[in-house]
Amino acid sequence: MRKLNDLQTPYLAVDLEIFEKNLETMKSIRPGSSLRPHVKAFKSTDIAAILKQAGYSGFCCATIKELEGLAANGLGDDLLLANETLNASRLRSLVDHGVEVIVAVDSTETIDAAKDGGIRNVLIDVNVGLPRCGCDLNEVEILSGYARRKGLNIKGVMGYEGHLMFTPDRADRKRGVAEAMQVLQEAHSITGGDIISAGGTGTFDLNELATEIQAGSFLFMDTRYSTVGLPFEESLTIVSTVISVERDRKRAVCDAGVKSFATDYGKPKLEDGIIEFCSDEHSTIVPTEQRGDLAFQVGDLIHLRVPHVDPTIAKHSRLACSQEGYIYGDWKVDLRGW
Amino acid sequence: MRKLNDLQTPYLAVDLEIFEKNLETMKSIRPGSSLRPHVKAFKSTDIAAILKQAGYSGFCCATIKELEGLAANGLGDDLLLANETLNASRLRSLVDHGVEVIVAVDSTETIDAAKDGGIRNVLIDVNVGLPRCGCDLNEVEILSGYARRKGLNIKGVMGYEGHLMFTPDRADRKRGVAEAMQVLQEAHSITGGDIISAGGTGTFDLNELATEIQAGSFLFMDTRYSTVGLPFEESLTIVSTVISVERDRKRAVCDAGVKSFATDYGKPKLEDGIIEFCSDEHSTIVPTEQRGDLAFQVGDLIHLRVPHVDPTIAKHSRLACSQEGYIYGDWKVDLRGW
Repeated sequence: MRKLNDLQTPYLAVDLEIFEKNLETMKSIRPGSSLRPHVKAFKSTDIAAILKQAGYSGFCCATIKELEGLAANGLGDDLLLANETLNASRLRSLVDHGVEVIVAVDSTETIDAAKDGGIRNVLIDVNVGLPRCGCDLNEVEILSGYARRKGLNIKGVMGYEGHLMFTPDRADRKRGVAEAMQVLQEAHSITGGDIISAGGTGTFDLNELATEIQAGSFLFMDTRYSTVGLPFEESLTIVSTVISVERDRKRAVCDAGVKSFATDYGKPKLEDGIIEFCSDEHSTIVPTEQRGDLAFQVGDLIHLRVPHVDPTIAKHSRLACSQEGYIYGDWKVDLRGW
Repeated sequence: MRKLNDLQTPYLAVDLEIFEKNLETMKSIRPGSSLRPHVKAFKSTDIAAILKQAGYSGFCCATIKELEGLAANGLGDDLLLANETLNASRLRSLVDHGVEVIVAVDSTETIDAAKDGGIRNVLIDVNVGLPRCGCDLNEVEILSGYARRKGLNIKGVMGYEGHLMFTPDRADRKRGVAEAMQVLQEAHSITGGDIISAGGTGTFDLNELATEIQAGSFLFMDTRYSTVGLPFEESLTIVSTVISVERDRKRAVCDAGVKSFATDYGKPKLEDGIIEFCSDEHSTIVPTEQRGDLAFQVGDLIHLRVPHVDPTIAKHSRLACSQEGYIYGDWKVDLRGW
């Protein structure tokens, strides 16, 4: 059995016990079709297969590559492209291979692409407050009419309240979600259809409108999601080696840098030190205020907490599955790229 | 001949004309052995082969994987691992395959790893002001003695003045480099050896001590390097599709997010808009102050300027080679990972 320090650092390790606990917690609150796991979080058919075993057969994707990979691995029974695309030819290729995909649309151009790609079912993507995709509530009627005239079937609506995922106070978050979902409910009263797809890890048990929640990060969590009091724990760490320690023990350097983790939500955290400076292949660690010098030795294996899980996983080709210091195989991250 | 909009976005495109001009400029100032191109910037044996054609046969690496990839592709005549490693077994594997590597060391532990890996030649890595690896000047003598007693040959010193790469004023930068290089010169007076390896794209023509400059970013540049008045231009852009435009034209969304570029040096820049908000798969664009609304249409192809080149390239498996709107093949980014 390999140990954690047998692998080349830096790498990502999943604590299997915590991962499974997170999955059980989600299953107890959002089982089966009430959750549509978002594959963009982990980009792995191995993990999607575990979710299917756990009763989740509908998946949410952000890229056509994710759709293609799931379909090619027998995981394509119920796929949603929860993102806008203009790439009709790649949609067509999926359809020609017998894959049924529901596609989110928010404009006549994306409706045309869905139609040209041979797609039958769409969701009208509605902006519910996040400054990103989704049409205005006032456009829902005209876009629905346009899609229907093109022969598309409107399965319902989508509206991601991403601006509320990290609202620290649960009651505030709940109020915000209710407000955002009023918009989506109005949109749904125009479109009809069985699906109201919304939500994420931060709102999975607060969103009372959604027929399905689009969450993926709950399996791994990260330092930012850990600030909002969710019933999930961090299962993923960046495993790194201390490669240099300054003589007076005021500075240590490990071999994980911005090529192995994303910093858009801040720097990684660790025990007994603070990451002061990240560069491509290194992070420089300084002492915490509590202790004046660092205890690390050159060669020590350390675990860094992940600041933002999705783009961090996307930097790695595999996740090592670990438990109590041993490695029990790995999961491939095979749906990276575009 | 394929056009830029025939490829699935987001992707990275290299403007071949600018790339070649950057290479010519470097050759005119730092030809042959006076530059040891840093492969960490581009992680591509295709690009290393172009550099070899241009007269550069010595390469600088940040990871053992880069060393292995260069050696396996006939590019391993003169390799430097410009980074600390404890992985003796992977060094040993290179040596057993007949690859000669010079390894940077800054501690007894890294010297032991080099020795155990069968390495013959090392550089003493000296801290010249960047808060990262490198021993203190006061440790050079004892580490040199330790390495020699282990039977290692000290080829010289390394000292990366990374803290000065982006000093805006050239005269200030030059003064800073001179000061940092005094430390390295003192270190070299202790170690001896033919090699003084230092520098980077920001100091390539200011560092008067280094026998070889470790630069890689000059081939592509990025928005941060463009602020310091270097004789290189940005050859790399992130090509993205506008997938959503708000009805009142105050917001547009493109399909490139933090999975396709690094944001540790800020957000990408573009013409006729400002990126306000980046998420995993999207960037939200708002109007510049000059113009009140956005001119983008859904489906438009846009070019984003790269904020930080090295970790951005490391997110992609290929670079598309472009000229005047056409694609002339691609370069594989085959040395990613660890």
